[in-house]
Amino acid sequence: MNQRWRLVRVPGPALAATDFELVDEAVRPAGDGEVRLRSIYLSLDPYQRHWLGGAPGYGAPPRPGDTPIGRAISEVLESRDPRFAAGDVVLGETGWQSQPTVAGERLTRLDPTQGPLSTYVGVLGSPGLTAWVGMLDLCKPRVGDVVLVSAAGGAVGSVAGQLAAMQGARVIGVAGAPDKCARIVRDFGFAACLSHRAPDFVAQLAHTCPDGIDAYFDNTGGAVTAAAWERLRHGARIALCGLVAEYGRPDVPGPPLRHLLAHRASVTAFSVREHLARMNEYRQQASAWIREGRLRYAEHVVQGIEQTPAAFLALLSGATFGKCLVQIGAAPRVRAP
Amino acid sequence: MNQRWRLVRVPGPALAATDFELVDEAVRPAGDGEVRLRSIYLSLDPYQRHWLGGAPGYGAPPRPGDTPIGRAISEVLESRDPRFAAGDVVLGETGWQSQPTVAGERLTRLDPTQGPLSTYVGVLGSPGLTAWVGMLDLCKPRVGDVVLVSAAGGAVGSVAGQLAAMQGARVIGVAGAPDKCARIVRDFGFAACLSHRAPDFVAQLAHTCPDGIDAYFDNTGGAVTAAAWERLRHGARIALCGLVAEYGRPDVPGPPLRHLLAHRASVTAFSVREHLARMNEYRQQASAWIREGRLRYAEHVVQGIEQTPAAFLALLSGATFGKCLVQIGAAPRVRAP
Repeated sequence: MNQRWRLVRVPGPALAATDFELVDEAVRPAGDGEVRLRSIYLSLDPYQRHWLGGAPGYGAPPRPGDTPIGRAISEVLESRDPRFAAGDVVLGETGWQSQPTVAGERLTRLDPTQGPLSTYVGVLGSPGLTAWVGMLDLCKPRVGDVVLVSAAGGAVGSVAGQLAAMQGARVIGVAGAPDKCARIVRDFGFAACLSHRAPDFVAQLAHTCPDGIDAYFDNTGGAVTAAAWERLRHGARIALCGLVAEYGRPDVPGPPLRHLLAHRASVTAFSVREHLARMNEYRQQASAWIREGRLRYAEHVVQGIEQTPAAFLALLSGATFGKCLVQIGAAPRVRAP
Repeated sequence: MNQRWRLVRVPGPALAATDFELVDEAVRPAGDGEVRLRSIYLSLDPYQRHWLGGAPGYGAPPRPGDTPIGRAISEVLESRDPRFAAGDVVLGETGWQSQPTVAGERLTRLDPTQGPLSTYVGVLGSPGLTAWVGMLDLCKPRVGDVVLVSAAGGAVGSVAGQLAAMQGARVIGVAGAPDKCARIVRDFGFAACLSHRAPDFVAQLAHTCPDGIDAYFDNTGGAVTAAAWERLRHGARIALCGLVAEYGRPDVPGPPLRHLLAHRASVTAFSVREHLARMNEYRQQASAWIREGRLRYAEHVVQGIEQTPAAFLALLSGATFGKCLVQIGAAPRVRAP
């Protein structure tokens, strides 16, 4: 059987586990050009919340009965697309289900020798590439710059901060809890990390970067972004990657534009979807850094497809650390890197 | 005597003519390195409101007794700086006064052969260079792009729109009154111009650019900017030049950042002060365009230094058209261009 999560309803502003239901459906044999898969790792990412809220840019808006979107790493069980064969490991937007049958054109075959399979949706996948593009191309950290990263314990933020530190910047993280902050400093080499839930967060930020911020990698929006914009330095660069603090609340005003004008600052929103052609270049570079111990990563892996909505809600609430994954099946054995 | 405007008080949110008083003071002879001037044209520009509101980036904040800041074109009456001689025409931040004595290092000698003297603080001066940098470097208009310009009848906006049209863009202006809009279309070649005071302005904007906006040259902030952000197209570029609709109101929230994220848009704030090294390059180019009839400009010239606060308030309220100037003295005869 294919175990498939589907939407009971289009979620409102307060996403709930009861917005989803798990159904068992007969596995569908592959038709011409199709591939039948066994999901191994399902990737949970904040952009899925964006789609659930009806935001443009993610294909058709959600309807009751839809399978929630999401990338997964899968093994090919049966292929009627000549590009794939049984046993191949593939990546695709196959959604929250255990044995999907999909068009082969939606899949990419992985060469799973550059790192553990799970990293192909994490540090060696879209979140890592997101961090690479946003930090190096948009934030442009230089030696001595002060660089702020929100959601610093996440799959994107943890890589973004390490990339800035490699460039000689002083990196300050923001996360949702003191224990996460401690891990971010210890494991990822941030100079400091602040909990945005601390009552004196704004004062802490001022104390931690008394001369302001040269670059800000923004994963969250909301109160952290409001505080960050108050501390911009001349010519500050902001990479706008996500607004996880604002998902489901469409009318959150932005910070006053006068902060940008006063400091000749820039905000550039981006999506990794427009940079996927650079994935191989990034993956080669990042896998070398991982082998050299220069780039580290964390994973939050839950077991079993039935855990998916709960894990997704945990991710959105800030309760997870590192890349959030649902393991649905065992990984096939691959050659060691 | 030197007629000098000075601040009676630091203005509050509602700037008033009574915040200024005109005083007669003895002319001060030039000391070593100083130059004594006769003001010809005083330039009124929205950034002066920014300084009056205590914004950073314009030197010391205003105090009672200060001369309001502002560029002027002047004739040298007496020089004790070897770089200047009596009869030279110079440009400098000499403020609202008729016969200032200032350090020569604060002045630039003009070669007044490229256009009428008044244009050196308008289309051939900082406002023109502002438009050039913001439109060509930041808005990057391409053939067929839809480009929106706020304060389109102003010294900056009128040039910005014409530069975009030269690149093959469809240019839509926003101004404060229907008669100004008509002039903007007729004189400056905008495809359309909308009055932001129309009750159905948002609907008019949607009707005028049904497929959205590729670039926005933002001189105003406020409600026009809120409407523009709602209509961004994929990859839209916003050049943030001014916030004249928000001066004196420091806590105006910005539009929701989700508009930027949904469309991978960017906002880049800038000031011409960081681009003054390109003035000669711009002035050569623009003066050729003016001679060829490809670049047009309008001026709003009031006569007499006593008119200065009233003219400045008219500028801020949107009641003027084109470059706003106060003529204080007669221009010396110069060689024809």
